[in-house]
Amino acid sequence: MSRYWSDLARQLTPYVPGEQPQGTRLVKLNTNENPYGPSPAVLDAIASISPDELKRYPDPDSSALREAFADREGLGSDQVFLGNGSDEVLAHTFQALLKHDKPLLFPEISYSFYPVWSELYQIAYERVPLRGDFTIDVDAYSMANSGILIPNPNAPTGVLLAKADIARLLETHPDSVVVIDEAYIDFGGESATALISDHDNLLVVQTFSKSRSLAGMRVGVAFGPAELIEGLVRVKDSFNSYPMDIVAQRATLASLQDEAWFQNCCQKVIATRERTSHELSLLGFEVLPSSANFVFARHPGRDAAEIFAELRQRGVIVRYFDKPLISQYLRISIGTDAEMDELLSVLEDVL
Amino acid sequence: MSRYWSDLARQLTPYVPGEQPQGTRLVKLNTNENPYGPSPAVLDAIASISPDELKRYPDPDSSALREAFADREGLGSDQVFLGNGSDEVLAHTFQALLKHDKPLLFPEISYSFYPVWSELYQIAYERVPLRGDFTIDVDAYSMANSGILIPNPNAPTGVLLAKADIARLLETHPDSVVVIDEAYIDFGGESATALISDHDNLLVVQTFSKSRSLAGMRVGVAFGPAELIEGLVRVKDSFNSYPMDIVAQRATLASLQDEAWFQNCCQKVIATRERTSHELSLLGFEVLPSSANFVFARHPGRDAAEIFAELRQRGVIVRYFDKPLISQYLRISIGTDAEMDELLSVLEDVL
Repeated sequence: MSRYWSDLARQLTPYVPGEQPQGTRLVKLNTNENPYGPSPAVLDAIASISPDELKRYPDPDSSALREAFADREGLGSDQVFLGNGSDEVLAHTFQALLKHDKPLLFPEISYSFYPVWSELYQIAYERVPLRGDFTIDVDAYSMANSGILIPNPNAPTGVLLAKADIARLLETHPDSVVVIDEAYIDFGGESATALISDHDNLLVVQTFSKSRSLAGMRVGVAFGPAELIEGLVRVKDSFNSYPMDIVAQRATLASLQDEAWFQNCCQKVIATRERTSHELSLLGFEVLPSSANFVFARHPGRDAAEIFAELRQRGVIVRYFDKPLISQYLRISIGTDAEMDELLSVLEDVL
Repeated sequence: MSRYWSDLARQLTPYVPGEQPQGTRLVKLNTNENPYGPSPAVLDAIASISPDELKRYPDPDSSALREAFADREGLGSDQVFLGNGSDEVLAHTFQALLKHDKPLLFPEISYSFYPVWSELYQIAYERVPLRGDFTIDVDAYSMANSGILIPNPNAPTGVLLAKADIARLLETHPDSVVVIDEAYIDFGGESATALISDHDNLLVVQTFSKSRSLAGMRVGVAFGPAELIEGLVRVKDSFNSYPMDIVAQRATLASLQDEAWFQNCCQKVIATRERTSHELSLLGFEVLPSSANFVFARHPGRDAAEIFAELRQRGVIVRYFDKPLISQYLRISIGTDAEMDELLSVLEDVL
């Protein structure tokens, strides 16, 4: 604590991201990265950046990129917002669209950055319980609120909410902005973007860190009615005019243009996830049905923190959350088949 | 206006950056970019990024880069903070260190993003008058305050404040954080970083957009006592864990390591600035003494807005601020000698 810190800075409890061990030989299954690299076209785009492009400010509005997204999604370019990772996009969303008189609602178990942004922007929130099987009950969101935020598939559970449920949520809460955080949607879910044309209260947020293999590049995007996007732009232009550097803009465009590579990587991850889920259940794990690039599993016979520690000791790093309701679960990112084989073989030892 | 916007989003008056015309053949002297590209080592570093690096999250703490900065400045790595452009670094500074009970002070004429951040974080501020010759009078900062923010050299005037004056400001305001925004310091000023060891209330902010020719890459840095840096880290880790992508981290490191290229570009810009100032005064302009990579000049015989418009029409774009006290001035970035020759020749026509 310093007397020079603002009251806010004193009160914050910052988010702690998953460990990023540098230069070690771990099987890294802790931060839901894609085991496959981005399209070679992305590498080409990055290598083609010129000195003249680097010395100039980038397009502050990422116009070319927004148009490419709009084309792909069947939206207008004024319905697309870009940011330095979906974390930045979500932070702006909290400040621009989720701060009102009544509390913000999000699931009791969800992305652990949500309470941090709530604190940062002094937004009251309530956590809404899940069903016993970790599914989201949209009827539980009936209390007065000024916004609803749902990760879909949910994290860290991987459980998917059906599009029909999202539509019902939008219709029963016409006065609230409903934000669907689709960080993992490409691994088996159906995006809610198709609902934007009929709902002026829907914002959909996606990331390039998972299905697009660009965690290292920091790219996030939001889709929504032009009016909501304009709210985000107002905050962005009052914070940092140029959140997307020229290299990130170019790399993202190249990634968008290689649909085949993207689809292929997603299919491989899905296939490995299904096999891994099956193998884990053969080892006695209870594995939640996952639509993400990770699985969430518990072993009735062994303490999760213990398994986590023993895996870590043997060079396999997964994610463990010492939190109510989920402290007996492990979140395991889906790597290559070889990485998952190593995990499974180490687990056989550990159990 | 949308009913879904927060009260804050409704109230904001976003910053408007200098125009970034895409794909046109203008002589672009409006956003203080460096006319010379970055070191070839930067291009090599960018081209060497691997798929494995792109698919993983970057080091959230930019550790290698912070150590390189610390070595160069003779500081500890806990005295260095990195961000996605100095605008992001400054935004976090407002939220973490400049929001207290009393108003923030900054010069009446200064970077026009300061009032925008003040609004974004609801910080009361007062603008402190300059002397008639646009120099900063540190004795004018005597009113009660909770923070002082000074661009040095000042923008858009280019006028330098001596290090001794900054030291006096630090000593007479021990209870306030004093932020020196050194976006243009490398073009003839002396950095205040040397004062950090003796003053626990000093934060120095720099950018890679000007002297380092990396406007397209978005890199900003703050130097200060570890306690102030920790306040910034708390806000950063409550906003976006990974503000610096892997390419930006690598490019910045390569730039730092090519000191000769950096010094050479600065010297060329300084030489061209001095020549341009002289030529402009021969054309009848009154040119403020500049320590930046731009000059701030007025012509007693012609309206500045008119000159601006006529230059624009002839393909030369400079910056004009329709604001009190400076509405008869033009801010002209220093380009290559050839670009300045074109400016001067067009000006001869216009005048």
